[in-house]
Amino acid sequence: MKGDARPIGVFDSGMGGLTVLRALTVRLPHERFVYLGDTARLPYGTKSADTVKAYALQATRLLLAEGVKMVVVACNTASAVALKALAEALSPVPVIGVIEPGARASIAATRNNSIAVIATEGTVKGGAYARAIAALRGDVRIVQQPCQVFVALAEEGWADTPATLAAAEYYLGPLFAGPSPPDTLVLGCTHFPVLTGAIQEIVGSAVALVDSAETTADAVAEALAGNGLASQGDDSAPTRFFATDSPERFARVGEIFLGRPIDVATVELVDLRSL
Amino acid sequence: MKGDARPIGVFDSGMGGLTVLRALTVRLPHERFVYLGDTARLPYGTKSADTVKAYALQATRLLLAEGVKMVVVACNTASAVALKALAEALSPVPVIGVIEPGARASIAATRNNSIAVIATEGTVKGGAYARAIAALRGDVRIVQQPCQVFVALAEEGWADTPATLAAAEYYLGPLFAGPSPPDTLVLGCTHFPVLTGAIQEIVGSAVALVDSAETTADAVAEALAGNGLASQGDDSAPTRFFATDSPERFARVGEIFLGRPIDVATVELVDLRSL
Repeated sequence: MKGDARPIGVFDSGMGGLTVLRALTVRLPHERFVYLGDTARLPYGTKSADTVKAYALQATRLLLAEGVKMVVVACNTASAVALKALAEALSPVPVIGVIEPGARASIAATRNNSIAVIATEGTVKGGAYARAIAALRGDVRIVQQPCQVFVALAEEGWADTPATLAAAEYYLGPLFAGPSPPDTLVLGCTHFPVLTGAIQEIVGSAVALVDSAETTADAVAEALAGNGLASQGDDSAPTRFFATDSPERFARVGEIFLGRPIDVATVELVDLRSL
Repeated sequence: MKGDARPIGVFDSGMGGLTVLRALTVRLPHERFVYLGDTARLPYGTKSADTVKAYALQATRLLLAEGVKMVVVACNTASAVALKALAEALSPVPVIGVIEPGARASIAATRNNSIAVIATEGTVKGGAYARAIAALRGDVRIVQQPCQVFVALAEEGWADTPATLAAAEYYLGPLFAGPSPPDTLVLGCTHFPVLTGAIQEIVGSAVALVDSAETTADAVAEALAGNGLASQGDDSAPTRFFATDSPERFARVGEIFLGRPIDVATVELVDLRSL
């Protein structure tokens, strides 16, 4: 008995979700993964909810066709606006987003009941983090700040350049300058963990940064066990990558987020438009 | 006789091309314009040539259906990789890109025969500016620099924030630090004119900035006259806008590039995927 050896599908608008894949491969060394980045249509963060929903449905159909046993939506924007539609469309395959785990982790981290959330325009506008946190605990003060430029800075790999520090100061300085600032900051976009150094420098070392990658990996582990879907094998297969645009750029920029080189030969170009 | 009263179609991946539309409306006050921003699929600058070509063909089909007499490709990336395909597909409707006019203007501006070009990754990789400049004059030294973060900074309206200055220093400082630096800098992306202040501060006031918007407007005026397509009317109609995603965001961010408010009621949401 080797359990359920089918792969887990991980989906993102681009390469940012590779921070989640990285946490998943560490947390679940016996599982196989298929990663899809919809790079021909990224970013999702500035697009409308209807557009993101349509794109996410097409993307997850490809993962289903690859025979996945579970889908992880490793994109905050898609998790924020499309999770329910995806869960309905993919049933009975379980769908896990990054918002709920991030919200849980922020509640566990805060001591002063004041949480800041930074994300893309789309995620902030949808208010999904604020709702998820409020649903878990009603008495928490939540401030949200869209940080759209962080996406481009992360894709350029500018972890702590002067430009990144200046942008972090612009976005976050005012949020943390008051007399009782938040003690917890949710990195509500999978791109942002790349900028952790600069962000921590601006908000101060006393502020807990919540990166939903780790907590999503925990949620996936729980869901696998709860649904009897865990693999018992000890022979992990290499991750397969799909991208909707240039495999070369996926491999090059993806390395920043995955934290290890990606062989461009393992990245397959796919077209989602007919799905 | 009122000449040819049909509108001119202007196409961009998003809102950056509104800097070109702005120059066109000033230069050609008697013409009517239809502007299409493919905002659901922007940016084009990080996408492959084949993907950009396919998107641009779909976009221009919508303009043809609107009865335009000419198409202006107000997007450097699409001009760089798709102009020939568009000219063939749209014939006999003339198609004007932004690369050739920008190249001409840079040749006219340089005194020391050394020109720098900044653009998106896609435009730089394609090398279209370098080819166009070299074709006009063989003895010019050309350096190219992709400035991907500038796109996000411009969309955020960060004309001269510390982050913009730091990014400009990172990208441009080394290019202009040598003993005989370029005396001319081509802003090879329609987003970049928004950042002119910060860019000029870093490169110094002696460097001529070439913004292809003005020179493209001149090229369009010439092509209208040359093809007998100019309108002789003196009653200009308001510009109609089409966007493939959120009209609200198009109007809000578009204002940064057009330099005047955009009434969201004049922005129509369209779906190009079936074209």
